[in-house]
Amino acid sequence: METPRHAPQRQFAVADDCLRLGGLALTRLAERVGATPFFAYDRGAVAARVAMLRAALPSGVLLHYALKANPMAALAQHLAGLVDGMDVASAAELRIALDAGVAPAAVSFAGPAKSHAELRCAVAAGALLHLESEGEMERVAETGAQLGLTPRVAVRINPNFELKHAGMRMGGAALQFGVDEERVPAMLQRLGRLALDFVGFHLFVGAQNLSAGAIAEAQSHSVNLALRLAAHAPAPLRLLNIGGGFGVPYFPGQCELELAPIAAGLERALALLADTAPQARLVLELGRYLVAGAGIYVCRVRERKLSHGQVFLLTDGGMHHHLAASGNFGQVIRKNYPVAIGNRMAGGPRETASVVGPLCTPLDLLADRVELARAEAGDLVVVFQSGAYGPSASPAAFLGHPPALEVLV
Amino acid sequence: METPRHAPQRQFAVADDCLRLGGLALTRLAERVGATPFFAYDRGAVAARVAMLRAALPSGVLLHYALKANPMAALAQHLAGLVDGMDVASAAELRIALDAGVAPAAVSFAGPAKSHAELRCAVAAGALLHLESEGEMERVAETGAQLGLTPRVAVRINPNFELKHAGMRMGGAALQFGVDEERVPAMLQRLGRLALDFVGFHLFVGAQNLSAGAIAEAQSHSVNLALRLAAHAPAPLRLLNIGGGFGVPYFPGQCELELAPIAAGLERALALLADTAPQARLVLELGRYLVAGAGIYVCRVRERKLSHGQVFLLTDGGMHHHLAASGNFGQVIRKNYPVAIGNRMAGGPRETASVVGPLCTPLDLLADRVELARAEAGDLVVVFQSGAYGPSASPAAFLGHPPALEVLV
Repeated sequence: METPRHAPQRQFAVADDCLRLGGLALTRLAERVGATPFFAYDRGAVAARVAMLRAALPSGVLLHYALKANPMAALAQHLAGLVDGMDVASAAELRIALDAGVAPAAVSFAGPAKSHAELRCAVAAGALLHLESEGEMERVAETGAQLGLTPRVAVRINPNFELKHAGMRMGGAALQFGVDEERVPAMLQRLGRLALDFVGFHLFVGAQNLSAGAIAEAQSHSVNLALRLAAHAPAPLRLLNIGGGFGVPYFPGQCELELAPIAAGLERALALLADTAPQARLVLELGRYLVAGAGIYVCRVRERKLSHGQVFLLTDGGMHHHLAASGNFGQVIRKNYPVAIGNRMAGGPRETASVVGPLCTPLDLLADRVELARAEAGDLVVVFQSGAYGPSASPAAFLGHPPALEVLV
Repeated sequence: METPRHAPQRQFAVADDCLRLGGLALTRLAERVGATPFFAYDRGAVAARVAMLRAALPSGVLLHYALKANPMAALAQHLAGLVDGMDVASAAELRIALDAGVAPAAVSFAGPAKSHAELRCAVAAGALLHLESEGEMERVAETGAQLGLTPRVAVRINPNFELKHAGMRMGGAALQFGVDEERVPAMLQRLGRLALDFVGFHLFVGAQNLSAGAIAEAQSHSVNLALRLAAHAPAPLRLLNIGGGFGVPYFPGQCELELAPIAAGLERALALLADTAPQARLVLELGRYLVAGAGIYVCRVRERKLSHGQVFLLTDGGMHHHLAASGNFGQVIRKNYPVAIGNRMAGGPRETASVVGPLCTPLDLLADRVELARAEAGDLVVVFQSGAYGPSASPAAFLGHPPALEVLV
């Protein structure tokens, strides 16, 4: 049996043995940044990804960016011009989305334990509040009364079906997210008596899914459930956010998600909505899928080291910048992200090596015995698929090493 | 079979239904801090822990604090008066130790990929450098020549034996830490020809170990190996740091480490050293063991929520402050830290509940279906054993929520 391989990283050019981002050779980019380690996000690759997705999906579908995947301000600004809205998960993310120029009406705010201060910010902004519970609905109505505004709200449903093959399940079980579907009719009845502007529903049943069939099935269930529950709503359905959950290939043997079965399902969903809820817009909310592949993490080899015959590349980067690549962010079994020596992309001898960082813990492992070009001190290690859940999802202060820089090129 | 339980948390008093820290009721402490969530470390509990350990171990053993466990400046200052030295893992930690008043000669600096800038800081400070490789030895000698100083160095050994029962293995395998033992004699020969002040050896074979027998065995092996290798050293052995690795009980069924077998082994080690290396001081390097139990994480219930009959306590705290308690810091199988409702410690009804945070991810789980006093919005959830690897080891920026405060009481 052949060893499983990583999906190819075709989003970046290679010239003269060197990876290129935004028209610059990686070695020059490292000088331009001025220090390693850094994360670099390629604006062309992000735009190409959104365009590819729009071309593959029915044109009636709205695309939202889930800012939690990567809240870098410059990237948010870039994405604001490419997508139809943004989803935020805190007051800080709300500020980033608004600063990026997203229309307040196109910003939605989800999260199971929003604070009083966050509710005030979101209502004052005019953002759409995803109601995660009956209690939150009451608090949002009170906040609206205090501010003299009518909050725009969507009800987040915790459906009884589950998403198969999801990297992270967020439906079909007891969960902190949303309202169990059987309680939604009563909640909608109460909602109609409050000074709230009912806009629609939100469902998000799982993340990092690479099975198109499972996603299409969950989306179909979501639309059907939302239409059933819409009968109890105090106003016509105007928006249906069916989440995202589109996975990206991180690990050996994983492939890019097939979009055709999803597109076919969405065509049917749009036709159904046109018949039964003609005012309703269908929203897909994607984070990782839009930005992961467009980003790389770059660190520099400080030393080659041998131990018991095994090669270790000791670098200036590590788990404090990129927890997910170290295997400590939700993974049960550690697997390697795709990794390369960015200034030795073509020829030269190859070897098996492990890439580690400066931390005094064996958890600080960016690649465990992978085949790489033979690297020396000064060479640049690249971790691909690093545009999402990178620095913002990592323990930056751990052991007091400098933070990673971030650039958009 | 009885369900395994958490070890009791006897380090804090309870009065009037309320946990007390530093002489204050938790509810008052929360007001004194001014906001939740926060980490609180009890200086009395830290002092009691160090005193207990000193009483249990032979008086000839020096105690060092591994600052990486908790680098809070006020805590470091407190510990500086209690221990014999500190071990640091970055230039930032070096500054904290020196600011805390630790004598430079009592500070040691370990880490597999120290930067040029870090080596300069450490040599200029007069700290002890733990050499992690032959290459680093050469760079330290060059740095000394540049600064006109003779660097003080210890050789970190990667021994061929391994520590049994360790939560995290750091010896007996191919590793980025230290120099494989069979290469140490040649390295010491070279060291004798460089302008370096050889002080001794460092071994650290594993962390979070709850088996006293395994620790005692590893310590005995470490001392024997160091004495064997000392025959090749260019100067008498003056310091032998045999690491730490003493575990604390985090999870149900785990008990406090037995110290008697370790103390007995250390008595023998001291006797052996007195005979064969009379100038050598024996150092134990402990981080987590000194501070974990003295600290709690406190967050406030924002809402009680039901889903599929299960109670969720939605709090303002979560994995972004306390990654380890969420089960995402090196654990393979998630288990619960000890948790309580800090203002309902005594009576009242109890129930099974899960404690979650505000993040839009199912990873944001502080306690999974544990028995707790029945809590309402406003109550204070306490996570015990939170004095080590808390905020500094957590992804504080994740989703843009406010950071946790830290206080020493």
